Amino acid sequence: MKITMAHGSGGASTSELIDNIFAKHFKNEFLDKMEDSAVVPGNGKLAMTTDSFVVTPVFFPGGDIGRLSVCGTVNDLLMSGAEPKYLTCGCIIEEGMDIDELDKIIESMAQTAKEAGVVIVTGDTKVVEKHGDFGGIMINTSGVGFVPEDISLSPKGITENDVIIVSGNLGDHHAAILSGRMNIKNNIESDNAPLVEIVNNLMAEKIKIKAMRDVTRGGLGTVLSEFSKASGTQMNIYKEKLPVSAEVRDFCKMLGLDPIYMGNEGKMIVVVDGSDADKALLAIRRSKYGENAAIIGDVEKTDDPKVVMHTEIGGERVIGPLFGEGLPRIC
Amino acid sequence: MKITMAHGSGGASTSELIDNIFAKHFKNEFLDKMEDSAVVPGNGKLAMTTDSFVVTPVFFPGGDIGRLSVCGTVNDLLMSGAEPKYLTCGCIIEEGMDIDELDKIIESMAQTAKEAGVVIVTGDTKVVEKHGDFGGIMINTSGVGFVPEDISLSPKGITENDVIIVSGNLGDHHAAILSGRMNIKNNIESDNAPLVEIVNNLMAEKIKIKAMRDVTRGGLGTVLSEFSKASGTQMNIYKEKLPVSAEVRDFCKMLGLDPIYMGNEGKMIVVVDGSDADKALLAIRRSKYGENAAIIGDVEKTDDPKVVMHTEIGGERVIGPLFGEGLPRIC
Repeated sequence: MKITMAHGSGGASTSELIDNIFAKHFKNEFLDKMEDSAVVPGNGKLAMTTDSFVVTPVFFPGGDIGRLSVCGTVNDLLMSGAEPKYLTCGCIIEEGMDIDELDKIIESMAQTAKEAGVVIVTGDTKVVEKHGDFGGIMINTSGVGFVPEDISLSPKGITENDVIIVSGNLGDHHAAILSGRMNIKNNIESDNAPLVEIVNNLMAEKIKIKAMRDVTRGGLGTVLSEFSKASGTQMNIYKEKLPVSAEVRDFCKMLGLDPIYMGNEGKMIVVVDGSDADKALLAIRRSKYGENAAIIGDVEKTDDPKVVMHTEIGGERVIGPLFGEGLPRIC
Repeated sequence: MKITMAHGSGGASTSELIDNIFAKHFKNEFLDKMEDSAVVPGNGKLAMTTDSFVVTPVFFPGGDIGRLSVCGTVNDLLMSGAEPKYLTCGCIIEEGMDIDELDKIIESMAQTAKEAGVVIVTGDTKVVEKHGDFGGIMINTSGVGFVPEDISLSPKGITENDVIIVSGNLGDHHAAILSGRMNIKNNIESDNAPLVEIVNNLMAEKIKIKAMRDVTRGGLGTVLSEFSKASGTQMNIYKEKLPVSAEVRDFCKMLGLDPIYMGNEGKMIVVVDGSDADKALLAIRRSKYGENAAIIGDVEKTDDPKVVMHTEIGGERVIGPLFGEGLPRIC
């Protein structure tokens, strides 16, 4: 069965689509009320975030746009120090999309939400005319989480002697999408994953976290450039310490890509007080999705804030934010 | 200047676009932190909603997609009894879009947010390839509001002797979009507006509100069908009492459209206890955007829940939800 413009009318066909696909997979006490707004319990400081997902292809090795759309928003909430709680789901569906495919994507959202411990409480669907290379669906997820009173994270708090840790291998998601788009056969899988356990383990160890950020569009280079600018520090990273799988390294070499600008969807940078570096590394390594974590750099005082990559043979290269096209539709 | 794929890369061009357009218009203490999540004060019961806007054309008589995207989400929050507080803004922009047009749309969002008393606290932009008849931008807004402890609205609470009030003329938005799409010249303008003052005035008068709903896609017929189903009542409406402007009435006659299935973006249905009907009507009529409010129907007990439209000469017609295509891209 295919999506038709009638599924976007707001009338009987829309309500049938919502019942048969969205309500079926997302079933929970808030969403089941089927109002335009969900009313949920709240308190304290709220974190809010939003992200639209336009990735093509919508199914890719290791994941799909549904899983991605939950991970992206959950991870953004986590990075602000919040406990992710409630998500919204706004779908823009292309006329002619196969309803079985939609069903798989929404099921994947539901499973990922369960894994991440969040509830999808309200949603909206729109149907648009068929175009050429649009992947069939674009998904916005917005999220709300609660921030403990004693947590306040900001890259402005980064100071000398802090240490930079990355939670795992760089570039997997970007390389998987690019492989799919270019029909290159390999075993690279997207790393799309919620970072809940990693952050929980860091919090449980009472690590002195200065700032966290998930490494998505723009890659490590862009995140560290923003951190360096916000804190007025020099951030040093060491090329040989960057975790990249052999297969992604070969893939990058072949295409002339730099892993430090490649997007991930299940990796984060955390900057911690130097005295906590080893404890933080161990806390991440024993988490799901954190087994390849590595300490990749350190922070020094400067009058000239920048990010510098050092090579084993003593080379130095200043790293700016990603400039130019990159690969926009990886998320 | 035109939008390029580089504006979607997540790197320097994206950050420039965000600074020059979004941050400029939305400027506020939460958004200015430029984190992926905004942290805002919270408490009590939260209402959450989401809506994606795909209307074409993006500028139309009386409004634009920016104003629409704020009104839609603010109104959904209001209808749940919440005080709207914080909005997110997720933009999917087409490559080649004129940056001046984008600037106008985002400025319109900022002005409408100010009018409605809400703050846009976080956002996301994606850029996609150029297609044929895509209007240049699609906007998702998600919103959070706080619900007073003593408020609990649900169409399930509708009972016999309740009265149905509509806040103004039906069909304006739908007729304005359709006129634009069909190149029909007339003076019809979209009614896109935030319903904040109407709801505040109803609350201030302590009206016994049973249920509220904004009349958007699917029209009055669809809202009342859902109310009747949820409450197990018969809802009677009277054709000659339905407020429709002369120009929209003529437009509908010409095209064979029925105002009860036409979408609005600044009108609401409120069902109130019969004893409060006149007080509620006056409260709405003295509000901005409520001057044409009318009592259009009543509720009776039944074993066969349905919506019945009565005509002046004694005719009766059962009204179901909108079935079939409607006009999907009106919002």
